[in-house]
Amino acid sequence: MIRAGIVGGTGYTGVELLRLLLLHTEVEVVAVTSRADAGQRVDSVYPSLRGLCGLSFTPPEIERLAECDVVFFATPNGTAMTMAAQLLQRDVKVIDLSADFRIKDVAEWEKWYGMSHSSPDLIAEAVYGLPELKRDAIRNARLIACPGCYPTAVQLGFLPMLEAGLIDAANLIADAKSGVSGAGRKAELSSLMSEAGESFKAYGVPGHRHLPEIKQGLRQVAGQSVGLTFVPHLTPMIRGIHATLYARLEQGVDLQALFENRYQAEPFVDVLPAGSHADTRNVRGSNRCQLAVHQPQDGNTVVVLSVIDNLVKGASGQAVQNMNLMFGLPEILGLETVALYP
Amino acid sequence: MIRAGIVGGTGYTGVELLRLLLLHTEVEVVAVTSRADAGQRVDSVYPSLRGLCGLSFTPPEIERLAECDVVFFATPNGTAMTMAAQLLQRDVKVIDLSADFRIKDVAEWEKWYGMSHSSPDLIAEAVYGLPELKRDAIRNARLIACPGCYPTAVQLGFLPMLEAGLIDAANLIADAKSGVSGAGRKAELSSLMSEAGESFKAYGVPGHRHLPEIKQGLRQVAGQSVGLTFVPHLTPMIRGIHATLYARLEQGVDLQALFENRYQAEPFVDVLPAGSHADTRNVRGSNRCQLAVHQPQDGNTVVVLSVIDNLVKGASGQAVQNMNLMFGLPEILGLETVALYP
Amino acid sequence: MIRAGIVGGTGYTGVELLRLLLLHTEVEVVAVTSRADAGQRVDSVYPSLRGLCGLSFTPPEIERLAECDVVFFATPNGTAMTMAAQLLQRDVKVIDLSADFRIKDVAEWEKWYGMSHSSPDLIAEAVYGLPELKRDAIRNARLIACPGCYPTAVQLGFLPMLEAGLIDAANLIADAKSGVSGAGRKAELSSLMSEAGESFKAYGVPGHRHLPEIKQGLRQVAGQSVGLTFVPHLTPMIRGIHATLYARLEQGVDLQALFENRYQAEPFVDVLPAGSHADTRNVRGSNRCQLAVHQPQDGNTVVVLSVIDNLVKGASGQAVQNMNLMFGLPEILGLETVALYP
Amino acid sequence: MIRAGIVGGTGYTGVELLRLLLLHTEVEVVAVTSRADAGQRVDSVYPSLRGLCGLSFTPPEIERLAECDVVFFATPNGTAMTMAAQLLQRDVKVIDLSADFRIKDVAEWEKWYGMSHSSPDLIAEAVYGLPELKRDAIRNARLIACPGCYPTAVQLGFLPMLEAGLIDAANLIADAKSGVSGAGRKAELSSLMSEAGESFKAYGVPGHRHLPEIKQGLRQVAGQSVGLTFVPHLTPMIRGIHATLYARLEQGVDLQALFENRYQAEPFVDVLPAGSHADTRNVRGSNRCQLAVHQPQDGNTVVVLSVIDNLVKGASGQAVQNMNLMFGLPEILGLETVALYP
Repeated sequence: MIRAGIVGGTGYTGVELLRLLLLHTEVEVVAVTSRADAGQRVDSVYPSLRGLCGLSFTPPEIERLAECDVVFFATPNGTAMTMAAQLLQRDVKVIDLSADFRIKDVAEWEKWYGMSHSSPDLIAEAVYGLPELKRDAIRNARLIACPGCYPTAVQLGFLPMLEAGLIDAANLIADAKSGVSGAGRKAELSSLMSEAGESFKAYGVPGHRHLPEIKQGLRQVAGQSVGLTFVPHLTPMIRGIHATLYARLEQGVDLQALFENRYQAEPFVDVLPAGSHADTRNVRGSNRCQLAVHQPQDGNTVVVLSVIDNLVKGASGQAVQNMNLMFGLPEILGLETVALYP
Repeated sequence: MIRAGIVGGTGYTGVELLRLLLLHTEVEVVAVTSRADAGQRVDSVYPSLRGLCGLSFTPPEIERLAECDVVFFATPNGTAMTMAAQLLQRDVKVIDLSADFRIKDVAEWEKWYGMSHSSPDLIAEAVYGLPELKRDAIRNARLIACPGCYPTAVQLGFLPMLEAGLIDAANLIADAKSGVSGAGRKAELSSLMSEAGESFKAYGVPGHRHLPEIKQGLRQVAGQSVGLTFVPHLTPMIRGIHATLYARLEQGVDLQALFENRYQAEPFVDVLPAGSHADTRNVRGSNRCQLAVHQPQDGNTVVVLSVIDNLVKGASGQAVQNMNLMFGLPEILGLETVALYP
Repeated sequence: MIRAGIVGGTGYTGVELLRLLLLHTEVEVVAVTSRADAGQRVDSVYPSLRGLCGLSFTPPEIERLAECDVVFFATPNGTAMTMAAQLLQRDVKVIDLSADFRIKDVAEWEKWYGMSHSSPDLIAEAVYGLPELKRDAIRNARLIACPGCYPTAVQLGFLPMLEAGLIDAANLIADAKSGVSGAGRKAELSSLMSEAGESFKAYGVPGHRHLPEIKQGLRQVAGQSVGLTFVPHLTPMIRGIHATLYARLEQGVDLQALFENRYQAEPFVDVLPAGSHADTRNVRGSNRCQLAVHQPQDGNTVVVLSVIDNLVKGASGQAVQNMNLMFGLPEILGLETVALYP
Repeated sequence: MIRAGIVGGTGYTGVELLRLLLLHTEVEVVAVTSRADAGQRVDSVYPSLRGLCGLSFTPPEIERLAECDVVFFATPNGTAMTMAAQLLQRDVKVIDLSADFRIKDVAEWEKWYGMSHSSPDLIAEAVYGLPELKRDAIRNARLIACPGCYPTAVQLGFLPMLEAGLIDAANLIADAKSGVSGAGRKAELSSLMSEAGESFKAYGVPGHRHLPEIKQGLRQVAGQSVGLTFVPHLTPMIRGIHATLYARLEQGVDLQALFENRYQAEPFVDVLPAGSHADTRNVRGSNRCQLAVHQPQDGNTVVVLSVIDNLVKGASGQAVQNMNLMFGLPEILGLETVALYP
């Protein structure tokens, strides 16, 4: 059994990790930390876990976490970078769901995240945990930087075309829509149901932190610099991301076949039949990304629809997928859940 | 492996059965019927099942269904009663999620359901599939009448007090609230999101079909006739039932202990700590009923809060629980899912 | 023109007052206060008001407010009681939407609201602003205690029967459901869309602050002490209260006629035809209360369904109705809005 | 008083017309037709209108409608074209909210709408009812083709830049999101709350009927052919459209000033301050379009955010605005409602 710890267990990605790990047949969760709720039983904060989890939250202490085989950071940005080195030194693998190790360019990270990076040396070692792109590196990694939710949906949608050099990489558009759980379990006015319910808005149009992460990923794949306009929106639902991607085709190609071939061996990327429209409800609670490819009116603009559950494939499920790879387990173990429809 | 068939696979209880049975380690789903969608792949109607179900819908033919060990009816009322006898004759166990065999008094059934019963003889044999009340009979049954969603939530909340003879059985009130999936996957104006969203209303106040079913169950437990006012409401959410139950206490008692003792061995009934409020989100997608007991202002009115997911413990999950019992499997097999929160 | 001020303009009842008063033909809003947002333009906080309101928030200073003819308090509990006396001394009428002057028994108020009352002497003078009960007193009042949202819906539903002495006043039940805007515009975890959306729960079952307010009102009408079990619930919608009321009938009566007669002259209470079910969407954004009366199965339990918009008839609309009465205006002025359906 | 008739009064645009017209001080609604509900009181179908509308639905007969000064068609496509000529002959003005007269090219209309046009001669006369573009023609029109909801939001967002010739008209993208009321009051599976709630999807990506309408409008403004990729999405809310528009800037310009100047005299188009994000909740129930303009990262892609209420500025409100213009009334009469927030 893999002994797992979760730092920052009171947020949505933390409780989602618990949902997945408590039923994972090869994992035992041995520590869940929370400064604010230390001493409280986990299942008193999350009654959905009653009968499944006898733990209480503990303060985030290295000594205790060092007894784990793997520690997940489900923390706000800026925490994992202060603890990762100590854990790695004690042979604990680290899977960071926050943004601390996602951006290779430290200066760019510091610009977007507004703080100094306390472990710049670890950034180079960290493997970007998108299995569809970095599977082999993940298998051998000690430190995983789990992709953000938007970056996962957007990159999986653009990858096949950029790899094949089919689209104008200088003029990509990603119009992305997220459920409100993406804002986390934080008491903020803008996330109130009275504010976010029954309404729709864009945010962060001048610049969102996921922009440099997405561009870095696409640039690696394209082998050239990319131009991306990224507009995130808040949607009145709890879970789900729908990315609508636009690109200019530079040559004719059977897009449907391209996508199907690229992802045929991927357990968690599902290319829908030609003519389909992806729907977030069909991946709610599952680790799957569903993709649909369109070329409207036979023009030269390709439209890709990409849906994930932001808390699963966009965060905690992907983290478990990474863990499975790092520990030599079947990649889908603990992730066979079917989407909750309706 | 148990060979299972589902009649009426295009409704919400049908697809929920698929969600649970496709991952059940002791079950193989071999037939899913639908007149309307016959010939279509199941996963083209339900893309959430892609990769998990290679079946196509077939017409509901006895010959094919007779090859099953168990057949679930996830059909509108009036269908199971026309097919159950033929299946039982061929040694196929039948689990009916509709109302056809729930009411022992045929005349009463015919009054509330507005049709003649075509298999009145089977009604006596049918076992009411509420495991918390009929576990032993279920184990030996050939034909199960799965309880309705409201009746499950309401009965589990009243049971301990009626069994103990603590409350005035002549004056019970059940104020119940259901998510819209309870109305089924039917194209009806009143179920449109524009009609049911952002609004709350009662319905069926003069009389709802679940009233006689609940009264029958409570009467058996109380050993006397019961008086029940039952008011169902439609709530702007998809899944979940919250029953708020009111009864007059006739003697002092430690209600918390009474409930905890009654349900301590039940795998799917969870009595929350004293002072708690049950929340449907904590059972969403799970087969669990969570209960909370209150005696406001130390008066003699007891208030019980009872929550279930109407499609799981209120329908398909309970059906699988019944199947597990009928086939001698561990009762929780295939039902260990954790509620999807948030 | 009536010069009106609003203290506490950044909450939902404050902005709802603005929605109503900015179009009121006899009112000019001259001051909107907010400590937190002082200096900011009102329409920068509430873009829905752009073009309609050129004011900026100011600190809540008596000097400025003293220039008003009427001041509305849309503040948290405990603020109005510290400012009302000074305003009344300067001949400013006061309409308090908070709870400060609702409970006549100071000790009881202090118990439920957890603070000392700073103006106990004004409590006796304050008129409870439920026009259907206190219209004449309101006309002559200087200080109005606007009823709470639950108390409005519950009292209007019980009134006709209590006035007529038809029901057992010792055993009333009010099962009430509120949209999330009732919790106010406060950054609290429990009001997040991820927490309150797609879920349903009761809260405050051991005791809610509106309980003593409702009991006080019902007691006055009944002319005797009343016993009430009051259970509020949180519903996943933004606006609306649905109260389902239960009482034991002590004599036969034409309930439909009773209700229609009682409210036939009331501009904002609408008794639906016999057999109807009230629906909160039909009063969304309007100052109306819609009522439906049922006697299920011809038993002796009467069920009343009462719906209001918690921010209008349950708060700001009722406040404007009171203002109209106090200033001798037509009672419906500025309140003729039609519910926003769908 | 203008005598107004509504054909097709049982859909959402019909009831929204009633909401606006019943309070319009210069209008008397004298006929509301519905084949299906003929004979029923309007307020029995729409209890929100109780006390405001004493009419019953009548069959759609020319004789009765000929007594009106203006007739609104809130019908499915294909109805207005069969009745408009007869009404115009009798000097009744016609405002069609359906698509029958929107597309000038009959062949294109017939291709997209799948039927023969029965009044092709009237198409030329019909004035496209977008006041911001055709105000003078509307004033003199007998027959108005009211714009679709998406076309209104999209055109108002692109207009200033196309008029100024600033963007690459050959490569426009409109990523539009609509609330579910846009699908109308029709009993369809895809509009059920269980299907459309808590989910997000694109639809009609290969081609949506509003595409040719938008292109026709933009072409007129641009004075050249335009290339547009239009992707509509379904959002889990009832009212609101959010269009996110992308275009390539061909020269530098102060976009904020451009938009503010273009719309400074428009009563129903509100350009938000620089840096703002439009939010559909701020126009819910109002006839306003709010716009925000961005140039992310100072690149050459301009992003315009355009929000309307699909049933008001996107349909019935705009129809009333047209009526006001046609009858020489103040353009804003009856449309001064404030958005319902929250």
